[in-house]
Amino acid sequence: MRDSEPVVVLGIDPGTAVTGYGVVRKEGRNPLTLIECGVIRTKPRDALPQRLSEIHDGIVELIRRHRPTVLSIEDIFYARNVRTTVVLGHARGVILLAGAQAGMEIHEYPPAEIKKAVAGTGAATKLQIQFMVTRLLRLKSAPQPSDAADGVAAALAYALMPNLPKIESIRFPSSVIPRSADIRRLER
Amino acid sequence: MRDSEPVVVLGIDPGTAVTGYGVVRKEGRNPLTLIECGVIRTKPRDALPQRLSEIHDGIVELIRRHRPTVLSIEDIFYARNVRTTVVLGHARGVILLAGAQAGMEIHEYPPAEIKKAVAGTGAATKLQIQFMVTRLLRLKSAPQPSDAADGVAAALAYALMPNLPKIESIRFPSSVIPRSADIRRLER
Repeated sequence: MRDSEPVVVLGIDPGTAVTGYGVVRKEGRNPLTLIECGVIRTKPRDALPQRLSEIHDGIVELIRRHRPTVLSIEDIFYARNVRTTVVLGHARGVILLAGAQAGMEIHEYPPAEIKKAVAGTGAATKLQIQFMVTRLLRLKSAPQPSDAADGVAAALAYALMPNLPKIESIRFPSSVIPRSADIRRLER
Repeated sequence: MRDSEPVVVLGIDPGTAVTGYGVVRKEGRNPLTLIECGVIRTKPRDALPQRLSEIHDGIVELIRRHRPTVLSIEDIFYARNVRTTVVLGHARGVILLAGAQAGMEIHEYPPAEIKKAVAGTGAATKLQIQFMVTRLLRLKSAPQPSDAADGVAAALAYALMPNLPKIESIRFPSSVIPRSADIRRLER
């Protein structure tokens, strides 16, 4: 049974060279399902405007294909090299633009918050994230490369957020939700 | 007489709250002409994706209206507050995207280089820039606000760049070029 409308979430781990993404479907208390994940790669030898154009095109194509209504994107981690961070800001700009142009609901989460939502700790390693993404979505193998898993993790950070249950759904047990997701819901 | 095709340059001083722009026409050795200048303002209370969307729309509209083939944009000055600089990177991202989508030739100049091209010194004040922009383009008054003048200055930085003269034009005196622009050409 459904206790809420299905939501398709596009999760993004932004990068100028490699942008990871994951499209996750959340439907009431059913297990979360992975629709697609992967990376958008740009060539380092191309000029920045060209690379931004390819990232924007890639995101627009994903939105066209899966009609997600929520964009969940990793926020910037400010301890990085300033120039790298500023260039990353350019990539995030065109991704947020694509979301705004499609009228999506947009959520930004710091990297540590995404890790905590998915793996229980903000200090989780890339391997731990891949493991938990695999487990939460009942995949046969971990998304590759790790950027794709990070994109999926961004989608999960939104999808695992606690929902205020509707009154008519309160009495039903949450047995169909993966146990680890359940724990996370209580923790947050 | 014309010794080269006219070029329309869109100059941009990017900002999240206020993006200044100037559209300048360069036609051979004729004096440079200002076609339009102004600012794109966004509301601080709006979410960043919404503001980025308005900046992108504004630039797309300018490109549609004037068909510039060159985008000349101020590069980031890294000494600013890091967070501000990163947010500015988002704005630059959507502006560069608009240029790339329109197939424009894109040039990025550090703020000091724009000031030097327009006012002869990288340490020029906002007032000096407004004065020189007014003089170089033979305007009756300075573009207001100063962000608009900065956008025009970005366009001038490209337009004042030395051109290698074509052989058939070498013998003609450059008397129609504003003298100040002439000096700048020699200096660079």
